[in-house]
Amino acid sequence: MKIAVLPGDGIGPEIVAEAVKVLDALKLDLQLQSAPVGGAAYEASGHPLPPATLELAQASDAILFGAVGDWKYDTLERALRPEQAILGLRKALGLFANFRPAICYKELTHASSLKPELVSGLDILIIRELTGDIYFGQPRGRRTAPDGHFPGAEEAFDTMRYSRPEIERIGHVAFQAAQKRSKRVTSVDKANVLETFQLWKDVMTEVGKQYPDVQLDHMYVDNAAMQLVKEPKRFDVVVTGNMFGDILSDEASMLTGSIGMLPSASLNDKKQGLYEPSHGSAPDIAGKGVANPLATILSAAMMLRFSLGQEAAAQKIEAAVQKVLAQGLRTPDIYSEGTTKVGTQQMGDAVVAAL
Amino acid sequence: MKIAVLPGDGIGPEIVAEAVKVLDALKLDLQLQSAPVGGAAYEASGHPLPPATLELAQASDAILFGAVGDWKYDTLERALRPEQAILGLRKALGLFANFRPAICYKELTHASSLKPELVSGLDILIIRELTGDIYFGQPRGRRTAPDGHFPGAEEAFDTMRYSRPEIERIGHVAFQAAQKRSKRVTSVDKANVLETFQLWKDVMTEVGKQYPDVQLDHMYVDNAAMQLVKEPKRFDVVVTGNMFGDILSDEASMLTGSIGMLPSASLNDKKQGLYEPSHGSAPDIAGKGVANPLATILSAAMMLRFSLGQEAAAQKIEAAVQKVLAQGLRTPDIYSEGTTKVGTQQMGDAVVAAL
Ligand SMILES: CC(C)[C@H](C(=O)O)[C@@H](O)C(=O)O
Ligand SMILES: CC(C)[C@H](C(=O)O)[C@@H](O)C(=O)O
Repeated sequence: MKIAVLPGDGIGPEIVAEAVKVLDALKLDLQLQSAPVGGAAYEASGHPLPPATLELAQASDAILFGAVGDWKYDTLERALRPEQAILGLRKALGLFANFRPAICYKELTHASSLKPELVSGLDILIIRELTGDIYFGQPRGRRTAPDGHFPGAEEAFDTMRYSRPEIERIGHVAFQAAQKRSKRVTSVDKANVLETFQLWKDVMTEVGKQYPDVQLDHMYVDNAAMQLVKEPKRFDVVVTGNMFGDILSDEASMLTGSIGMLPSASLNDKKQGLYEPSHGSAPDIAGKGVANPLATILSAAMMLRFSLGQEAAAQKIEAAVQKVLAQGLRTPDIYSEGTTKVGTQQMGDAVVAAL
Repeated sequence: MKIAVLPGDGIGPEIVAEAVKVLDALKLDLQLQSAPVGGAAYEASGHPLPPATLELAQASDAILFGAVGDWKYDTLERALRPEQAILGLRKALGLFANFRPAICYKELTHASSLKPELVSGLDILIIRELTGDIYFGQPRGRRTAPDGHFPGAEEAFDTMRYSRPEIERIGHVAFQAAQKRSKRVTSVDKANVLETFQLWKDVMTEVGKQYPDVQLDHMYVDNAAMQLVKEPKRFDVVVTGNMFGDILSDEASMLTGSIGMLPSASLNDKKQGLYEPSHGSAPDIAGKGVANPLATILSAAMMLRFSLGQEAAAQKIEAAVQKVLAQGLRTPDIYSEGTTKVGTQQMGDAVVAAL
């Protein structure tokens, strides 16, 4: 089984190194190969997603991804900025199904902005469509406004689009995920304003009929943003489009207080997947050896489960992470009085020891 | 001065009645005229925004609006649903500048989902562009996909658009509002993905140069959704587009814990405005006399300030609301032990008495 390892920028290399350490310790038959991506790739070869990196990714069963981005690339033209690597990988590999768990770890309940009773035991799975919507819809660009409030003025535009089969396939992913959980799906839309999300809602309703054991409800995106704050535990599986999913999954992961712990997976229809932590590249703490590697280590566990069919190994990693938390080991982002502060490498070593 | 009074659906009539009571008590020279809107108008005449209602609104200096919407209209075709009334009024009157304060009232700090230290004293002003973006952009509709992932399939689409002058005018509104506050503006965009919001960011930066006394920073919408949860007090004035503003303003108002207290204003370039509570029509508690009228009463205060030039009267109302809170009067939505539970009318009467 081939794994492309793309560490990227900021804390990416440090946290990916720990995940690789954990994979190595499992002594599975994995072939790991690294390649530059993001700002690091731009520095090395002038493009955030060089052809060799893309080919490696395409030829692999899974991609273990660190993080990309740094303020210093802000002035580059858009096509050369680090984020384009991640958008390019999603598109080229057709990674349409993004799984973003928002889990509040028992030991970290106090770290949430929310009152403990609202988040303790929280376990939401946000399923975000990742290759459609306004992220990739054509046409888009700048032009002279043909009509509207100021005809003749300079304007910019993008196109939001979803086709029936695109909505169906992410719908099936969500309903099947719900069947393995508490059998509830909330589909988030803005059908009261957008044509795209009226179709979304219609198709979700139809797909839902094929899953009579799963309860479906619909919620407007503005209301979902409120309910996540008010009563997050009302949610189980949430399915939504690319743009709304971007916003809601970040909101949800922050409110758990456990963002340094949250993995993510982005899959295509062949179960090829890209696995990365939910947090970013944190250039401010890069190179200091203090970043939390657990989200990346847990992403490696998701990779074993979803793309490599190694459920037992995935569970081993997850149990080891639980163990180091129970031992009281904490990187600075999740540290609190009475626990033991450790660095990135020590945390990785502790997970290996706990395996 | 002419005011169109549009009570609407659900709790709308009850809460608007209390705001009217307060306006009457001020004995200003106001001419109030009511008209049906939303579901109520649909029932009466087959359309959520009948021509007579629209004409009344257009001929008035300001609109005092309750709320629209009820589950029972969910099956109507979109053009006849209650929300279309509010979209229609925004468009017809050109109400491009939406002011949504997110304030945490001292007395209600405990009602927030967030820990008290994160929200006590919170005072954010979200300025949402309200007549552009994907809400109104043409073309939009359903069609056979001309290209994309599934060419030939049924698809739906919408167009996100902003022109330079549209961004400039909301930018000026935001910077001028910041000059009267703590002189900080956060412009929220998604310039890393969307052409529309790259132009938005560019134009905001340019407009900002005309306000050297105001500090401008830019934030991606997903990050803004997180920072609102993590550290809401870092924000002062937030300016953003119609779609992102819909989501973020609801998130922000819910996290104050004071949503039953939050007014809003939507203005055009002639200072004509629509004033409404930030909360919805709450059909579940309609007619029970328990709805909180304070957000609507405070919306009437904003109306006096922004559209009618009656700053003194506005302050009088705001002081009266502070007073009833200090007296410990609470509708059920904001009730807590040790305070006095009152109904909608009692609350309105108390504000009048406190004037
Ligand atoms: C970096 C950016 C393009 C990306 C997105 O918007 O999808 C990120 O925010 C994410 O959620 O993975
Ligand atoms: C009712 C709906 C169309 C409206 C919107 O999306 O703008 C509402 O959510 C709001 O924020 O006023």
